[in-house]
Amino acid sequence: MSSWTPVPCQCCYTSCIQSLVAIQLRYPAKAETKRWLISKLEGHKKEGGAHLLVHPGEDDDGTLILLSATPYTLLKATEVLGLAKPSSDGSMVAFSYNNKADFPNSDKPEAFLTLAERQLLVKYATDSAKVLQETPVPGYPERRLYPGQSIVQSLQEWGIIEKFYPLHVEEELHLLTRAWYSQIHRIGQPIDAIRAYFGDSVALYFSFLGFFTISLVPMAILGAVYHCLSLSFLDKYLLFAVFSVLWSTMTMEFWKRHCATKAYVWGTLHLKSRFEAPRARYWGPSALNPVTGRWEPYYPSWKRKLRIMLVSIPTVFVFLGLAFDGMIMYLYWERWVQASYQQSRGSGRLAAVCLYLPSCIYTLYIELLNVIYKRAATILTEWENHRAESTFQNQLTVKVLVFRFINCFSGLFYITFYMQDLQLLQKRLSSLLIISQVINQFKECLLPLLLQKLQQQPGASHRKNCKDAPVVDSFVSEGNLSAYPGLFDDYMELFVQFGYASLFSCVYPLTAALLVVNNITEIWTDSFKLCRLFQKPFPCPAANIGVWQVAFEVLGIFAVGTNCFIITISPEVKEFCQDFGMTPEQSLLYAIGLEHILVTLKIVLAFAIPDQPHWLRIKVMQMEYHSWDALKQAEIKRALPIC
Amino acid sequence: MSSWTPVPCQCCYTSCIQSLVAIQLRYPAKAETKRWLISKLEGHKKEGGAHLLVHPGEDDDGTLILLSATPYTLLKATEVLGLAKPSSDGSMVAFSYNNKADFPNSDKPEAFLTLAERQLLVKYATDSAKVLQETPVPGYPERRLYPGQSIVQSLQEWGIIEKFYPLHVEEELHLLTRAWYSQIHRIGQPIDAIRAYFGDSVALYFSFLGFFTISLVPMAILGAVYHCLSLSFLDKYLLFAVFSVLWSTMTMEFWKRHCATKAYVWGTLHLKSRFEAPRARYWGPSALNPVTGRWEPYYPSWKRKLRIMLVSIPTVFVFLGLAFDGMIMYLYWERWVQASYQQSRGSGRLAAVCLYLPSCIYTLYIELLNVIYKRAATILTEWENHRAESTFQNQLTVKVLVFRFINCFSGLFYITFYMQDLQLLQKRLSSLLIISQVINQFKECLLPLLLQKLQQQPGASHRKNCKDAPVVDSFVSEGNLSAYPGLFDDYMELFVQFGYASLFSCVYPLTAALLVVNNITEIWTDSFKLCRLFQKPFPCPAANIGVWQVAFEVLGIFAVGTNCFIITISPEVKEFCQDFGMTPEQSLLYAIGLEHILVTLKIVLAFAIPDQPHWLRIKVMQMEYHSWDALKQAEIKRALPIC
Repeated sequence: MSSWTPVPCQCCYTSCIQSLVAIQLRYPAKAETKRWLISKLEGHKKEGGAHLLVHPGEDDDGTLILLSATPYTLLKATEVLGLAKPSSDGSMVAFSYNNKADFPNSDKPEAFLTLAERQLLVKYATDSAKVLQETPVPGYPERRLYPGQSIVQSLQEWGIIEKFYPLHVEEELHLLTRAWYSQIHRIGQPIDAIRAYFGDSVALYFSFLGFFTISLVPMAILGAVYHCLSLSFLDKYLLFAVFSVLWSTMTMEFWKRHCATKAYVWGTLHLKSRFEAPRARYWGPSALNPVTGRWEPYYPSWKRKLRIMLVSIPTVFVFLGLAFDGMIMYLYWERWVQASYQQSRGSGRLAAVCLYLPSCIYTLYIELLNVIYKRAATILTEWENHRAESTFQNQLTVKVLVFRFINCFSGLFYITFYMQDLQLLQKRLSSLLIISQVINQFKECLLPLLLQKLQQQPGASHRKNCKDAPVVDSFVSEGNLSAYPGLFDDYMELFVQFGYASLFSCVYPLTAALLVVNNITEIWTDSFKLCRLFQKPFPCPAANIGVWQVAFEVLGIFAVGTNCFIITISPEVKEFCQDFGMTPEQSLLYAIGLEHILVTLKIVLAFAIPDQPHWLRIKVMQMEYHSWDALKQAEIKRALPIC
Repeated sequence: MSSWTPVPCQCCYTSCIQSLVAIQLRYPAKAETKRWLISKLEGHKKEGGAHLLVHPGEDDDGTLILLSATPYTLLKATEVLGLAKPSSDGSMVAFSYNNKADFPNSDKPEAFLTLAERQLLVKYATDSAKVLQETPVPGYPERRLYPGQSIVQSLQEWGIIEKFYPLHVEEELHLLTRAWYSQIHRIGQPIDAIRAYFGDSVALYFSFLGFFTISLVPMAILGAVYHCLSLSFLDKYLLFAVFSVLWSTMTMEFWKRHCATKAYVWGTLHLKSRFEAPRARYWGPSALNPVTGRWEPYYPSWKRKLRIMLVSIPTVFVFLGLAFDGMIMYLYWERWVQASYQQSRGSGRLAAVCLYLPSCIYTLYIELLNVIYKRAATILTEWENHRAESTFQNQLTVKVLVFRFINCFSGLFYITFYMQDLQLLQKRLSSLLIISQVINQFKECLLPLLLQKLQQQPGASHRKNCKDAPVVDSFVSEGNLSAYPGLFDDYMELFVQFGYASLFSCVYPLTAALLVVNNITEIWTDSFKLCRLFQKPFPCPAANIGVWQVAFEVLGIFAVGTNCFIITISPEVKEFCQDFGMTPEQSLLYAIGLEHILVTLKIVLAFAIPDQPHWLRIKVMQMEYHSWDALKQAEIKRALPIC
């Protein structure tokens, strides 16, 4: 309760305009740099400026700059970004400044745009500030900006700007967290309020977390019944295999619909894809970009492809090999330890400790490998020299995703396909589900909280009575928090859960129930982390969960093969086949048949369930029809009589 | 050489404006109907008219109406349809009438728009003629038009208009056919000229036919080598299986690229999808359409779905069952006949004839079933009461496609999977490839030609000296030809060929070579059919081959399973496995492994080969960037100084 105590009012700068975003220069800030940066941020669009309202923060060391925007700048940026807003007839229309009268509330930006949208728009304007000629940065003559290069991104890259973050609004945050935590059934989260405060991508994550948890409930009930009654016959495998394959398809298909609905209401469904400016770290000799017609660094894509093929992919495979080898060594070691323990008949405490040694060392090994790999992947992706930030992020995500996937599932796949030991699989699964979830929650939430408390011990006295402290102190203290690490690890956790549920719940039917319990606490820890432990992240417009949608669907396809294989090796099914005098070849043929039928069913289901609900398709058609009709009407109006 | 003899000049009506499209009323035409129709077609857009140049044809029975259009009408329709045209910097830009100065040649419609485009635009204008209030048709008081209903489509539906067809331009046709037939290597067709004369969909078909034929060549060479050297060992199956799976993927992926390039150059790549007007046969109580806000017939989609589920799908399955049963009966019958023939040691001519009886009767049965099914499918789809013509066509295509697929392949699948008789499979394949191709060519081209000759015998004397006959007679005689049956059967033939090549060429390596030979004559018969045997079809804008792309890709997926299965049952592989002491179960496991690897490879390939070539992606990005940049520039120009 130290650094994030509410602050009474934040709208005290420049005639009560709310500060939205803060920039903190590296200490000690050079006066000429600060002056120049402020002039660029305030400057006219025609001169490459950002046209923002800028206030030098009245902080102790003079490194803070606070940004805000006039309604005009906000509305124009809304148009250029292509956000859709409710028009007077209630449907969502891409905002156009010239027709702003058609959009209710467009004269009141605080009501028309959410906090997250305003911060996004200010960030967009800030990033668009650029120089018109090649210019050295005042105070740093060795740093030169080329025309069109984003000033703020480059200064961040060079460390001249240390921090760049959106500001919390304590009253709104207070209302939001109250609504979030006070829900008795925690799954019904205030998604629209989250979106208004944190933006689309964060809201979509929490929405997906809730959606996923609810979708697990039927499976959890079914599994709990089977587990409690200790039912174990042929049907169990078949039922769970078919159920989990259908479940994974249906969950992702209905999520797409849910997501499209949300994106429509939020005005991001038809967000225009923009041609991105080059990343600050993109380098190469200057050349004319064929798309924009501007001079900018250019790196030929064949060189990039060569780097990916010859260096990145082999390196990834080396790491995958290390992870896989570690896993196999661990499995053998554990078997050996257990065998020796049983031989020694459990004598001595030391022996009992030794029993857990393989697990502990393997866990440490994996954690270490994870850290090294993440760093290696970042360096490699950076070295591949991608032009656009989105490509960079995608490449990095795919690299990390593949590694984590192998890390999390290779052991289970090895036990299933190679060792064919369903008993061991069940044991591993239950320990993974219970132990690693507890560790995760601790690592994600309690650990950062403790670290923060420890770090801020010295300054604690000065923040005790922050009701009286100037507002600017709260801005600085927000900047002192660590930057939000992004949603990757959170999605990764759900990805692994989705894998456990769809791949292996026929072996361990309690999986879904354990996941539901875990996710209910997960909502709490994730939201707490977001609201209180880290800097507010910049909002990010999104219409879907992006690469994760694909990742979850690919996992759903793996589920078919795995489930069918588990059926053929399960002792109950083997027994059944022997009773009916089937050869192993025949039972294998049945399993292949089942696999093909399930894959077909999956594809048919994916096609049969439309990606958008009916009303939304009507709305989209209406929109398209109106824009086409407008063109035709204009033609009729201008039509000449026959000559 | 009777009905299509060249006519010296066709541009003799209304001050030398070329007639593009003809409408023929049912004989005897009522004068008031004709007068009213002409007034509507000439009428002003504001009054629901089509704004066309109309000339009552000076034919003997006064049923002909000839249509043309002013440059203004053509250019405006180009804009509304969203066709892209080369702008002054050479890139393709959606045509805009207000910026017509940016498009070279836009003042000369004959050079700016191809014949096919002009005819398409006239058809579009004609279809858009409508009444503003509910009106009875003059001369047919029992027929009433509701506001917004297309006049010409409704009159066609009611039989008041008997024919509606675009006109040939004999000089252009002559040039086109010369270029088409005179190519020594017939695969290099003048695709752009075909497109200029017949429109996108026809040109895409011939382009695909050529592309597919060329793609078969490597496989044909490989297969011919294997066949001639009578090579037959393990590798053959494995090699051909892997090759044909990769081949099917690569062919369709590279076709997508080729097709995107063509569509870009033709200006149809980014064709706007329009909200279609209801079909003339769509019926239901009048209701407000939520998209257009107009009163029109409305039929709830749940009723349609019920009809599809409860009637259409069961009916289709009944027909599929009939086809399947016929196939099985035929196979048994033929086995029995051959067994008896061998018992009787080939004595007597009658016995030899009987040997071919099963084939003949089965072929007749299938042909009969085909005809009945096609009619049933049309009636069913009509009865399902689809609102838009495109949905209707898609539903009909899928119904017919599934049936034909079962008809063509169920026998081969049955022999492969159930009887596991590769010898019989090879025999069937070779007979199908040789005999049915010959029959097809005969049915498609020679038969219609003969029928036409027979039909036109009586009128032949009067057309002998048609150089002197008025132009209008040639228009009438064009109308007397049968309507072009569309591209369905032509694509279907390629679909079956693609299936033979990708599914079974490991069993009969000569497949590809036979197909190449067939396709070279196919190009000739198809083009002759199109140019000379039928009415000129209306051009249809298209950016791809639509549902056929999906159909071919699905076949490619079937190819993986079939090829892997053939490998496991091939005697060579079985022998090999026995030599190495593998159990059948193990060899089956290897086959499953191979299948999974091939499917994965297919997916990876499909993702790795971009759907558009690099230069085209740059062009598309340029286009998007410019439209976005224009918006931003406009913002900068209008930007106000900070207040």
